[in-house]
Amino acid sequence: MTHDCSFLEALELGDGQVSFADGRRESHATDFGTAQKDGRGVLPDAVVWPEGTADVSAVLAAATDRGVPVTPYAAGTGLEGNAVPTHGGISLDLTRMDDVVDYRPDDVQIDVGPGLIGSDIDEHVAADGLFFPPLPSSGDISTIGGMIATDASGMQTVRYGEVADWVLGLEAVLADGTVVQTGSRAIKTSSGYNLTDLIVGSEGTLAVVTEATLELAGRPEQIRGGRAIFETLDDAAEAVFDAVRTDVGVARIELVDGLSATMANEYLGSELPDAPMVFLEFHANHGIEEEIDLCRTIFEDHDVARFEMSDDDDEMDALWQARRELAYAVVSYDPALEPLHPGDVTVPISSYPAVVHEAKRLADEYDLLVPCYGHAGDGNLHYSALVDPDDPEQVERGERLSREIVELAIELGGTATGEHGIGQGKREYLEPEHGAGAVEAMRTIKRALDPTDTLNPGKLFPETADGKRVRDSEQ
Amino acid sequence: MTHDCSFLEALELGDGQVSFADGRRESHATDFGTAQKDGRGVLPDAVVWPEGTADVSAVLAAATDRGVPVTPYAAGTGLEGNAVPTHGGISLDLTRMDDVVDYRPDDVQIDVGPGLIGSDIDEHVAADGLFFPPLPSSGDISTIGGMIATDASGMQTVRYGEVADWVLGLEAVLADGTVVQTGSRAIKTSSGYNLTDLIVGSEGTLAVVTEATLELAGRPEQIRGGRAIFETLDDAAEAVFDAVRTDVGVARIELVDGLSATMANEYLGSELPDAPMVFLEFHANHGIEEEIDLCRTIFEDHDVARFEMSDDDDEMDALWQARRELAYAVVSYDPALEPLHPGDVTVPISSYPAVVHEAKRLADEYDLLVPCYGHAGDGNLHYSALVDPDDPEQVERGERLSREIVELAIELGGTATGEHGIGQGKREYLEPEHGAGAVEAMRTIKRALDPTDTLNPGKLFPETADGKRVRDSEQ
Repeated sequence: MTHDCSFLEALELGDGQVSFADGRRESHATDFGTAQKDGRGVLPDAVVWPEGTADVSAVLAAATDRGVPVTPYAAGTGLEGNAVPTHGGISLDLTRMDDVVDYRPDDVQIDVGPGLIGSDIDEHVAADGLFFPPLPSSGDISTIGGMIATDASGMQTVRYGEVADWVLGLEAVLADGTVVQTGSRAIKTSSGYNLTDLIVGSEGTLAVVTEATLELAGRPEQIRGGRAIFETLDDAAEAVFDAVRTDVGVARIELVDGLSATMANEYLGSELPDAPMVFLEFHANHGIEEEIDLCRTIFEDHDVARFEMSDDDDEMDALWQARRELAYAVVSYDPALEPLHPGDVTVPISSYPAVVHEAKRLADEYDLLVPCYGHAGDGNLHYSALVDPDDPEQVERGERLSREIVELAIELGGTATGEHGIGQGKREYLEPEHGAGAVEAMRTIKRALDPTDTLNPGKLFPETADGKRVRDSEQ
Repeated sequence: MTHDCSFLEALELGDGQVSFADGRRESHATDFGTAQKDGRGVLPDAVVWPEGTADVSAVLAAATDRGVPVTPYAAGTGLEGNAVPTHGGISLDLTRMDDVVDYRPDDVQIDVGPGLIGSDIDEHVAADGLFFPPLPSSGDISTIGGMIATDASGMQTVRYGEVADWVLGLEAVLADGTVVQTGSRAIKTSSGYNLTDLIVGSEGTLAVVTEATLELAGRPEQIRGGRAIFETLDDAAEAVFDAVRTDVGVARIELVDGLSATMANEYLGSELPDAPMVFLEFHANHGIEEEIDLCRTIFEDHDVARFEMSDDDDEMDALWQARRELAYAVVSYDPALEPLHPGDVTVPISSYPAVVHEAKRLADEYDLLVPCYGHAGDGNLHYSALVDPDDPEQVERGERLSREIVELAIELGGTATGEHGIGQGKREYLEPEHGAGAVEAMRTIKRALDPTDTLNPGKLFPETADGKRVRDSEQ
């Protein structure tokens, strides 16, 4: 799988834009998902840091000519190995393309490079009372390019939608080096095929995004945040379903199970009950108290034990602390255990109580610790079995549990991944979720736009029996 | 261009599902756009009314085998000849596939056939307090399939977005007869390529939609509607820009110029001033009066002459009458004149005053009647030069005016068509708007998914020099 990348030295790239050093190659062979599992993927043969669209175009054209794979990389925060090479070649690190290229507050739009950290957008536009609503929870460490690649979303998606809903247009480079402009600065268009939404979520397999035109939103005038504590997880999940069905004005509604609460208490040294919780944030310009009262009434129908809400920033922070620190609490809980497949599934909201219930039932059946939490208002559930990586039998139980949850989500009309992408980790679920016809249509598009399978090979599509790249098999 | 369609008789279609009669062929060779211009397109050789997905699949597979074009058709309300054949073949009339297949109020979702009239959805779900927000103004005569084909939108798009924003998934048939399922019933997914949004807006050139899963919304608790009258059109357009930039809680904000007001007065026998107007509707669950007051204050900064708002249904209807009847008022104004190119352009909101001003300046320069109105909050402008079709010099002036407005919209970062699609009428603008690279990427996708150019040939892509179908040229 080693590719000769010496051609890179002949391209007009500046000093420090290309590295063949082991340390650089190793750092570009991991993401959050692989780091929590078997360590890393296949080392790239070289790492390239483009500093503009022309660099990206030159590298892609030359790599395609030579049959060398190119895997786009940025902050490395993916959970499914999305940016980790599977066939060596070039790791294309876009973190230097992190400019705010243009900002048009009158149009509530901003143009940014793919390497920009998400929360930097909010900083840039805060003085005008604007923000970028679909930022994922990792928004202060992950890049816009990565969010576009996976069509990321997060806590505020229940109200504001996913990243795709906020991308008006892209500049992107195809495998052969062609630079394309997609979309429009008009907020709607019926002109031509929607290449923007085809590229968003395609995990760098169709094009490399070099600039994105994003919509922004005005900050709400009223914000209240807080927490509800329930007796049982079923009550909590049913309460969320009821609140979403009733369309209460929440901007965040997060479920955390009792085990996760225990982990948070241990990590934070806090003394909350080890009970299921729902974390809430309301956004409104008027009438926020009425919305909170409506939500409280609904939650009372589901036997809520405590319902605490505040309009004070520090108090809201304190009420939310367990949720905010939860990812760290889970990984710190027992140093001997590692979370398997820390991704997500997402289901229609009416099925949310069922999938939550089943996840915990499977945890009992397989006798594993399985903390469950998620952006409940979207029908999203994060779960991961904590297993001893040196105990193959335990790992195997964890794998079975993970598979059963994903299969249930698909059976319920949901998706194997609501916000992290297929990457390497969930390729086996693409066809069960979409069916053979749709997957073949996706492959047809991939082969048409990237016939040499240059862009991020080994991702998204089910593994071929021989492990070959798409171009080498099944033609 | 005549194709032998006798093979249809060998397919397992029922009585009355195929017609070769002249009257049927003629009725399927027009839409609203062609009816207002040169009459009709190329007659199809046959009309087929599928009654289910299997019928669509059988017809497409057989037609593709034989190189016979298939043009999807439904209500025929398009403005750009989108559903009018250019190469004969089969007109595939989907109006019999008009079922509500499934309705899931708990998930706020409905599955419908492509032939369902848009407003029938609202009737079906009204008892649950739900509605389908992106319906175009033609929602009571046009079909869901047509709305999906053009990614339609309408008066409420300023608040609720376009049709694409409300389509969760599709069942669609590819040119070779393969049935694909796209999207998810989960409200978000990061799994695989977004085939849904690729098909939405592709004007039947990539697939025929046989079922759509749509999201619905809860009706707002408060609705107020009314009208503002301005001294000048520039004031009115600037007021709209200011209101949108300030994010006032409007659900509809429509601009009508003085000439259109004159036409409405004449048509309705009403005695409104012949002055520019802005029609408004506010939706909210709380605080609607505050939003109206904010809007009034902004409009007063732009010298609004009258600002009338009501919460009474009949009064709202009366205030909105001129806007509601405007399309009829324009075509009835002078029987000797016909509207040229009655489509739309859409621009970023900050450019809206400029494009409105320029449209009226061009009307003066070319000495033509050009009524202008539109979904102003989206930056959308409908305009059409009224010309005597028997006066070639006047028609030519009208053509020049239309072209200059579209070119200006594109130059301002906007789109040649915000809501009606490219069809036949705007093919020359696809490349100026998107650039050669993006158009070639669109062609690559078209050729990959429909290599025989079976589906709706002669649409969307720029005309080839020899008028041939995509498959026959430029390979």
